[in-house]
Amino acid sequence: MRDPIPPTIEWRDGAVRMIDQRRLPAELVFVEARTVDELCDAITSLAIRGAPALGVAGAMGVALASARGDDLAAAAARIVDTRPTAVNLAWGVQRALAAADPHAEAQAIAREDVECNRRIGAAGAALLGDGARVLTHCNAGALATAGYGTAIGVIRAAHQAGKRPSVWVDETRPVLQGARLTAWELERLGIPYTVVADVAAGGLMAAGQVDCVIVGADRVAANGDVANKVGTYALAVLARHHGIPFYVAAPTSTVDVATPTGAAIPVEQRGPDEVSLVAGTRLTPDGAAAFNPAFDITPAELVTALITEEGVQTR
Amino acid sequence: MRDPIPPTIEWRDGAVRMIDQRRLPAELVFVEARTVDELCDAITSLAIRGAPALGVAGAMGVALASARGDDLAAAAARIVDTRPTAVNLAWGVQRALAAADPHAEAQAIAREDVECNRRIGAAGAALLGDGARVLTHCNAGALATAGYGTAIGVIRAAHQAGKRPSVWVDETRPVLQGARLTAWELERLGIPYTVVADVAAGGLMAAGQVDCVIVGADRVAANGDVANKVGTYALAVLARHHGIPFYVAAPTSTVDVATPTGAAIPVEQRGPDEVSLVAGTRLTPDGAAAFNPAFDITPAELVTALITEEGVQTR
Repeated sequence: MRDPIPPTIEWRDGAVRMIDQRRLPAELVFVEARTVDELCDAITSLAIRGAPALGVAGAMGVALASARGDDLAAAAARIVDTRPTAVNLAWGVQRALAAADPHAEAQAIAREDVECNRRIGAAGAALLGDGARVLTHCNAGALATAGYGTAIGVIRAAHQAGKRPSVWVDETRPVLQGARLTAWELERLGIPYTVVADVAAGGLMAAGQVDCVIVGADRVAANGDVANKVGTYALAVLARHHGIPFYVAAPTSTVDVATPTGAAIPVEQRGPDEVSLVAGTRLTPDGAAAFNPAFDITPAELVTALITEEGVQTR
Repeated sequence: MRDPIPPTIEWRDGAVRMIDQRRLPAELVFVEARTVDELCDAITSLAIRGAPALGVAGAMGVALASARGDDLAAAAARIVDTRPTAVNLAWGVQRALAAADPHAEAQAIAREDVECNRRIGAAGAALLGDGARVLTHCNAGALATAGYGTAIGVIRAAHQAGKRPSVWVDETRPVLQGARLTAWELERLGIPYTVVADVAAGGLMAAGQVDCVIVGADRVAANGDVANKVGTYALAVLARHHGIPFYVAAPTSTVDVATPTGAAIPVEQRGPDEVSLVAGTRLTPDGAAAFNPAFDITPAELVTALITEEGVQTR
């Protein structure tokens, strides 16, 4: 019996309790936020990340502020400012703000997210053939959501349907969400996987070792352009070059109709130390500059299909 | 006054003395090989790497065996077996074996390599416009050669010619030759550079931030297909997608007319721990499999020009 994956984020004893994703895979420990400041710290330091999970976190942050009698508008602004790209964060905050009971609304968002992901999984699994070799980037699994996952949800659903998928896991520099988080989830789920350096994807595709690419999304613009973890765009270009389907799996809460195209999506720039240091060891010489965009934009024309809880939208 | 870059490999006091590239950029220290076994260890552990540098190392290994009265054929076979992809290794070994004085031949190969690289630099620099923003992968600099460098040689020559190039340095997972070695060289040379995660290249190209890509090569097949550090192929596909020139800089000793196409080039598979561990810290969960090809093959049709000591060969 494999170890289950506990809830990514939940309300427990008056606090927001989250898996501390900075510590995985070495240890499964939790971080608790009892104030909006603590929650914002957890978000900016990537203890919790993933667009749908941030939607829940944003709503629970408003619930925390409400329970403590904080100024709700100020708290909401502070939470939304933590990370600019994932639209779900602002979406979750707005839903909780507009609700009569922010706490109940946050819980509802979390429940709905898991239900959405199961529907995404069912819809997407139909796209995978028997024994499909799926390449994924970053972590769009249970840890990126309230549970089950989006891109990984599709693979889970195919696995549960007996399709025997296997997964090429991009390690996903610089923060290594693939090597650390997706590998950890797949290990617990008993789904076969192999970790590769991000740069290996091209050679794998050229060798006919990849049947499709499935990734999540941090924001989908009205025209279908997709913001997702940096490196996603290169995979989409490579997939197109090799005639391999490139799928994006995300709940409709990630679709931002107010953003016309990818050019209008703000791309978060993070500090250079995520590139220059790994596990506390400096990799670059003293004085080296590093550039660290957290996301990139994949034009809609490179996306074979968008998989949401409403079904598969092929272009 | 900046620190100069010492010789990558030289004969000193009856031993082969090499910069220990495993320890850069943290410290500049040397490793000495007094036997063929010690030299082979230095090659397999990547204390020395880079196709032209391996050519010199191979020849110096034969010289070591000759000076010690070892069986030359056995020593040559052992050296050639250390790394299968870089054709220069076998080329250097064969030249030294065929020479009346292997030691003098090894020294000649080293001198010729630096001279070749200066000619490559001069030929390639003509391709760069003023203020060119060059993206490079892995390390094809002084450290990958007997001195001066191939891809970095082109950038050096442009810099010396007052063209003010700047460099996007791919960190080059898994062994990080870009973050560790290319950044170290450029810092010493006073050439502006910025380190990026390999996955950032696509977004940089889409944003118009890359004027050309220049890489080295471990072997060029007779038809022009190029084996180089894993990740090179993805850059070539991305460069083509964005209409950006993709240059390969290498001495003619890297061209292997006995290998008809890239499909016949053996691609070295290295151990999974290069992917799973960084600086001694395990990144992946226990039990995680990792796949670690050291090279990939870029088809000739994606190479805008091959820059050798004989000039620029445009397709």
